[in-house]
Amino acid sequence: MTVPKPDPALVEKLVIANRILYDQGVVDGLGHVSVRHDAVPDLFLLSCNRAPALVVRDDIVCYDLDGDAVTETQERPYLERFIHSEIYRMRPDVVAVVHSHSPSVIPFGVTGNRLRPIYHMAGFLGSGSAHFEIRDTGGNTDMLIRNAGLGKALASSLGAQTCVLMRGHGSTVVGNSIEQVVYRAIYAEVNAKLQAQSLSMGSINYLTEKEARLAADANESQIGRSWNLWQRRVGTI
Amino acid sequence: MTVPKPDPALVEKLVIANRILYDQGVVDGLGHVSVRHDAVPDLFLLSCNRAPALVVRDDIVCYDLDGDAVTETQERPYLERFIHSEIYRMRPDVVAVVHSHSPSVIPFGVTGNRLRPIYHMAGFLGSGSAHFEIRDTGGNTDMLIRNAGLGKALASSLGAQTCVLMRGHGSTVVGNSIEQVVYRAIYAEVNAKLQAQSLSMGSINYLTEKEARLAADANESQIGRSWNLWQRRVGTI
Amino acid sequence: MTVPKPDPALVEKLVIANRILYDQGVVDGLGHVSVRHDAVPDLFLLSCNRAPALVVRDDIVCYDLDGDAVTETQERPYLERFIHSEIYRMRPDVVAVVHSHSPSVIPFGVTGNRLRPIYHMAGFLGSGSAHFEIRDTGGNTDMLIRNAGLGKALASSLGAQTCVLMRGHGSTVVGNSIEQVVYRAIYAEVNAKLQAQSLSMGSINYLTEKEARLAADANESQIGRSWNLWQRRVGTI
Amino acid sequence: MTVPKPDPALVEKLVIANRILYDQGVVDGLGHVSVRHDAVPDLFLLSCNRAPALVVRDDIVCYDLDGDAVTETQERPYLERFIHSEIYRMRPDVVAVVHSHSPSVIPFGVTGNRLRPIYHMAGFLGSGSAHFEIRDTGGNTDMLIRNAGLGKALASSLGAQTCVLMRGHGSTVVGNSIEQVVYRAIYAEVNAKLQAQSLSMGSINYLTEKEARLAADANESQIGRSWNLWQRRVGTI
Repeated sequence: MTVPKPDPALVEKLVIANRILYDQGVVDGLGHVSVRHDAVPDLFLLSCNRAPALVVRDDIVCYDLDGDAVTETQERPYLERFIHSEIYRMRPDVVAVVHSHSPSVIPFGVTGNRLRPIYHMAGFLGSGSAHFEIRDTGGNTDMLIRNAGLGKALASSLGAQTCVLMRGHGSTVVGNSIEQVVYRAIYAEVNAKLQAQSLSMGSINYLTEKEARLAADANESQIGRSWNLWQRRVGTI
Repeated sequence: MTVPKPDPALVEKLVIANRILYDQGVVDGLGHVSVRHDAVPDLFLLSCNRAPALVVRDDIVCYDLDGDAVTETQERPYLERFIHSEIYRMRPDVVAVVHSHSPSVIPFGVTGNRLRPIYHMAGFLGSGSAHFEIRDTGGNTDMLIRNAGLGKALASSLGAQTCVLMRGHGSTVVGNSIEQVVYRAIYAEVNAKLQAQSLSMGSINYLTEKEARLAADANESQIGRSWNLWQRRVGTI
Repeated sequence: MTVPKPDPALVEKLVIANRILYDQGVVDGLGHVSVRHDAVPDLFLLSCNRAPALVVRDDIVCYDLDGDAVTETQERPYLERFIHSEIYRMRPDVVAVVHSHSPSVIPFGVTGNRLRPIYHMAGFLGSGSAHFEIRDTGGNTDMLIRNAGLGKALASSLGAQTCVLMRGHGSTVVGNSIEQVVYRAIYAEVNAKLQAQSLSMGSINYLTEKEARLAADANESQIGRSWNLWQRRVGTI
Repeated sequence: MTVPKPDPALVEKLVIANRILYDQGVVDGLGHVSVRHDAVPDLFLLSCNRAPALVVRDDIVCYDLDGDAVTETQERPYLERFIHSEIYRMRPDVVAVVHSHSPSVIPFGVTGNRLRPIYHMAGFLGSGSAHFEIRDTGGNTDMLIRNAGLGKALASSLGAQTCVLMRGHGSTVVGNSIEQVVYRAIYAEVNAKLQAQSLSMGSINYLTEKEARLAADANESQIGRSWNLWQRRVGTI
C-alpha cells in the first residue's frame, strides 16, 4: 500500500513535542509521544527507538494499528508502540498520546492513589486518573506493553479518561492535539507533585467535577501561550 | 481620551520584572505582573496575553480600572486582568501586583493553611496570608477571575494584607513598587516551601507580628541588592 | 611487570562515564567509577584523585587487586580504591563499579531501609539492596574504605547483589559494563527518591522478584538509548 | 593608621568563594563570606553591600573588629558585618566565616531541631549545631545582627562549635580557611536536606562523636578536590 505523506508541519510539531517533553522533565532517555496521521486515521506517527531529546525529522516512522511500520525504516521501533496503537484503535477521539515515567506520578501508581485536580491547570483530570494493573492481564511480566494484548488491556483501563497510571511503570495521557497532550503530560506531573505535598499538609479541597470541566474548557484557549514558551526554549529544529 | 505616555523606564522595568519572575520560578507560561501608571492613578500597565518570559516593550498595554485597554492593541488581553483592576481600585496604596501559580504556595490554598513568616525575608506576610474561596461568590466556575465581580470579591478577600491565596488556582501579592512586589512574589514562594518542610518537622516558632513588621521594614533598604542580581541573570532587554 | 595497554576506547568510555555521573547528579566533587582491564582481569582502571567532572584521559591509572598502581603516575590515588579492588577480587562477574554519595540513597542507609524496586527501571534492585555497617568491622572509623580489610568487609556485605548501602557514607553499585553500572547508579538514585515519596503516601506495591528480574533483562536492550542521551549532554572528550 | 595590604591571592580567593556559594545554592542575593586579614589578625576582609554572585575584587573592604571600615570605600557595608567581627574577636582559631539563609537549614532553626551529621561529609557538625535565639538578647527585633551587642550574643551561642542556627533567620558557619568554611557551608545545607528526609523515614543512626571527628579530619585532605570543581564552575575572575 502507498502511504500518503503526513503534513510536514505535523511531523515538525511532533519532533518539537519530543524535545519539549524532555526540556520540561516529563521524559528522560525513555518515553514517547505520537500523533494520529492527519490523512489516514488508522495510522500514527512515532519516532524510532530514540531518546526524545535527540529525535529528528528522519526518525519519525508511520505505524498502523497493529504496531507495524508502514514506512521504510532501518531503525528499531519502540517496544511499547502498542500503547499508542491500541489507544488509537479504541479511542477515535484521541489524536495524540504521551507515555512517560514522569517522576512525581510514579508514587501514585504504586500506592494506589488517584491523581485528582488540585488546581485549574489540571482540570483535564476530571474526577481522577484511571489505574492499570498489568498483573491482572499478564501476571508477572517485564512491565512493558510489548504486544497488542497488553495494549488493549491498557486502553480498556484508560476507558474514556485522559490519564492512566501504570503501576510500577509510568503513565499515559491522551489529547485531541499534540499541543493538548503535551500540556496534559506536563501538568499531570506538576499536579502530582502538588497533590503529594498537599496530602502531607491536611485534607484537600479538590476541584469539583464541574469546576474541573469548566477549567479544562477555559484552558483550551490558553495553551498556545505556554506552547510558545516551551517551543522557544528548545529552539528551532 | 488621550492617555499620557508612561515613563519609558517604568515600562522597561515591567518587562524586566516579567522575565525575573520566570527566571526565579514564580511563573511558568502563565501568571502576570502589572504596575500602576506613573501619571494617571486610574490606569495600569500589563502585558498582552503573552508568556512572561517572552514579554517585550511593545506587549505592554495600558488598561483602565474596568479592565478595558486604553491604548491601541491588536493582541488579546489576559482573561484575568480584573485581578489587577479591582485591586488597584480598592487599594490606593498598591502600585504593583503579581498573580501567579507559584508551586509551593498552591498546597496551602487547597488545604486551608495560611502562609506565615518563617524568617525575616518573609516579614511582609505579617500575621499571615488572606484566603479567597471563589465558590463563595461564583459557585462552580472555571476558577478564573474573568470579570469585575470576581475581581472585587478577590480584592475584598485580600483586604489590607499583602498576599491572598486563591483556592485551586494560585495566589496574588501586592506591593508599593515593581521591585517590592517581585521580591514578595519570590519570597512568598520560598517561605511556602520552607514552611511546608518545617511543618513536617515539629512545632514552628514563627516571627511575631512585631518581628515581622520590623523585618519587613529593614528589608526595604536591601531589595536593591537582590534586584541587581535578578536583573543581571535575565540580561538587558 | 609490563602492563598491557587497555583498549583506548574503554579508557575514553570511562572518562565519559565520570562526566555523565556528575551531569546526572550521582556524584559531586567526590565519588568514582572504575572498570576492569579488558586484557588482564586482575587489573582495573580508575582515575587519580580528581573530581569526576574534571577527569581526562591522562588521569586514568591502572591498579592491581591490592589497590597498588601498576602504571606510572605522579598523582595521588583515591583513598577508597579498595572498594573497587576487593569487589573485583570477590566478584569475577563484575566488570564495572560506581561508588557515590548519591543524595536520595543516603537516608535509606542511615535509617536501615532497603532500596526496593518501585518500577521497571530499577528491576536490577531485585529483592532489595544490601546493607554495610562499617562499625561491625572497624568500630569507630572515619567511615572511609581506606584499606583492604574494610574493602573485603564491604564486598562481603554486597554479596551477590547489585547495590550496597553504606551507613553514614553512601552506596556502591556494580555491573557487567560501564554503561550498565552508570545506568544502575542513576536509577538507584531515582528509585530512592520515588520510594521515599511513595513511603509517605501509603503502602507500596513493589515489583515482585520475578517482575524485577524480567524488567532488568528487558532493560538491557534499551540502555543504549539513554547512554546516547547522557553522552550527548556531556559532549565529546 | 596604615593598613597593610592583604595578600592579593587571598582577596581573589574571597571573590571566588562568593561566587561558589551562589553557584552551589548556599546564598541567593543575600548572605556573605569573610576572611581574617593574613597580616593583621584584628582585621578581616568582606565585600561591600553586594549580592555575592556579583562581587568583584574592588568590592572587598577591610574592617576592624568593631565593624568599621579601615580601607576607603564609597559603598554601603553589609548591615550584619557584626556577625563576622564578633566571631573573629571571640574565636582566635577562626579564619573564615559564612553567613547565609541556606534553605534546608532554616526549618531546623524554627523547629528547634539540631543539625547532626548524617554522613562523613558532615563530620564537622560533631555532636550537633548550636542554636541562637535573638529574642533572648534583643526581644522583638528585625532579626538582623546589626550591632556589636547582638554579634556578641551570636558568638556566645556559637561557642566552640562550627555551626550556629539562627531562629527565623539563617545560619553561620566558621572554619580555619576559606576553602574549609565554603565546604562546611555547602555540606551543612546538604546534610540538612538529607537529615530532614531521613527524619521522615525512621530512626536515624547518626555518626558517633568519634566517627564525626575522624571523618572531619580525613576530609581535610580531600577538600581541594571539590574546590577545584567548584572553582572551575564559576570560571576565572
